[in-house]
Amino acid sequence: MTNDPAGVQQFLSEQKKVLDQLLLEYARGTAAPSTVQESMVYSLNAGGKRIRPILLLAVLKGYGIPLQKGYRTAAAIEMIHTYSLIHDDLPAMDNDDLRRGKPTNHKVFGEAAAILAGDALLTASFQLLTDNQDLLPEQKMSTVKLIARAAGPSGMIYGQLLDMESEGKSLTIDELEWIHHRKTGDLLSVALESGAVIANAEQKDKEALSIFGKHLGLAFQIKDDLLDVEGDEAELGKPVGSDEVNEKSTYPQILGVKAAEDKLHFHLQEAKRCLAQLSMEPELLKGLTDYIGYRKS
Amino acid sequence: MTNDPAGVQQFLSEQKKVLDQLLLEYARGTAAPSTVQESMVYSLNAGGKRIRPILLLAVLKGYGIPLQKGYRTAAAIEMIHTYSLIHDDLPAMDNDDLRRGKPTNHKVFGEAAAILAGDALLTASFQLLTDNQDLLPEQKMSTVKLIARAAGPSGMIYGQLLDMESEGKSLTIDELEWIHHRKTGDLLSVALESGAVIANAEQKDKEALSIFGKHLGLAFQIKDDLLDVEGDEAELGKPVGSDEVNEKSTYPQILGVKAAEDKLHFHLQEAKRCLAQLSMEPELLKGLTDYIGYRKS
Repeated sequence: MTNDPAGVQQFLSEQKKVLDQLLLEYARGTAAPSTVQESMVYSLNAGGKRIRPILLLAVLKGYGIPLQKGYRTAAAIEMIHTYSLIHDDLPAMDNDDLRRGKPTNHKVFGEAAAILAGDALLTASFQLLTDNQDLLPEQKMSTVKLIARAAGPSGMIYGQLLDMESEGKSLTIDELEWIHHRKTGDLLSVALESGAVIANAEQKDKEALSIFGKHLGLAFQIKDDLLDVEGDEAELGKPVGSDEVNEKSTYPQILGVKAAEDKLHFHLQEAKRCLAQLSMEPELLKGLTDYIGYRKS
Repeated sequence: MTNDPAGVQQFLSEQKKVLDQLLLEYARGTAAPSTVQESMVYSLNAGGKRIRPILLLAVLKGYGIPLQKGYRTAAAIEMIHTYSLIHDDLPAMDNDDLRRGKPTNHKVFGEAAAILAGDALLTASFQLLTDNQDLLPEQKMSTVKLIARAAGPSGMIYGQLLDMESEGKSLTIDELEWIHHRKTGDLLSVALESGAVIANAEQKDKEALSIFGKHLGLAFQIKDDLLDVEGDEAELGKPVGSDEVNEKSTYPQILGVKAAEDKLHFHLQEAKRCLAQLSMEPELLKGLTDYIGYRKS
């Protein structure tokens, strides 16, 4: 008997495999010089969960649209996420030596290759967004516009700057939330919205999916913070308590563990309320919401 | 009496003024955090000649298309050029303290802000390309695709990597040319091709403009190298002989000054031959070719 009624685990593992493969294919297809190509492939291969592209694909599945239509857009968003991790880890930025238990990109390939690999992933992602014969020019245009805004200076880049500037400071919960909206939520929401664009969903669905994404993004971050306090090091693949060592403001640190858990549940419930408003089959997205909220790593 | 029959000087100075203004407007309109915004504005304001966007506008003028249609695309290309200068100057890359006689971006704003400002300009440029009501979705799509390819890992980024890797090595003229095609030529050509897309030019014109761009890009670079040997420091705003100090392979160093001058004239002539094939009024582009080939700085 399966304990996976909505097929969430199966969808996650199947689509992760497809995306892993496609990302390498796209990176190798860029005709980048070998140093940059190896550096891109290393970080694309570094064990990401592929949450953002899988959410996009889950939206398509909910609307009954062939997943084939969305793979390039999904992969492009994951490439942007990967570029942001490479640049964020640089010595001048967060100066991280390890990510998911592996040496960070610049530790392996040097800073110059890491900067260029990030630039290459970001630029190539926009080429990939336009290179999709299954979509209309208007649809591609909308995704380029939405994704550039979410990843750009008023979105993800804003979040990274504030995150760096806030290290060692104590933040209010509103300040912390604003950083997470920009740094994580905007790109996560835009993955869902891009799915809605590809599915030609109604405007009210696009808006509901965007709000769903904001709640999901916060739930994702709160769970991350909680795992850093209460998680199992073996399952996490990194030491617990690293946020405290790094003097990072977190939900449990500002609110306490109990109130942070309550907040996690609040956002999970709000996320599911958004799903109930959609003109689609929401079971898979509901299952992914639980996966994000109750994961062990 | 004017010595500017094709109106080249007037076009250059008028359009540079318009572009200077628009670039600041677009950068300020990104809603970037102030650190990143100031860092973007600093480099956008650092005295660039605006060659690439002016070439795009000159293509529109040649076809009798209102310049208004091309300003956003032109500015986006200049933002990409500016991002590449900021990242190329970083300590891990070319480690330059000065550009056009002014401190480089990271010397003023620090490395983190310089990396983020580069990322922001690159990402925002794609948003700007989609944000143009005067163009059809197909036209915007074409420019995003062409520009992402030219700026990406098989284009400008490839050139930058090879340029770094070749420092201190002696290159053959073919190797040097390949680097310049990627590092300078591809973005310069794509400015011209984007103009052709906006003007709905015929395919044969697009191809001729692309080849024109390749010759012009090489001519630009050879002239740069020659100015570094023979130029006037006061007019250049930088010391002559810096290529030799930096052990950079250049045309005069590989070929000698006389043969480098011959090569410059060859590419200027080939460029003009391409212009003769176009179904447009080529006088302005011809004048800009001479401006690039005979400039003093």
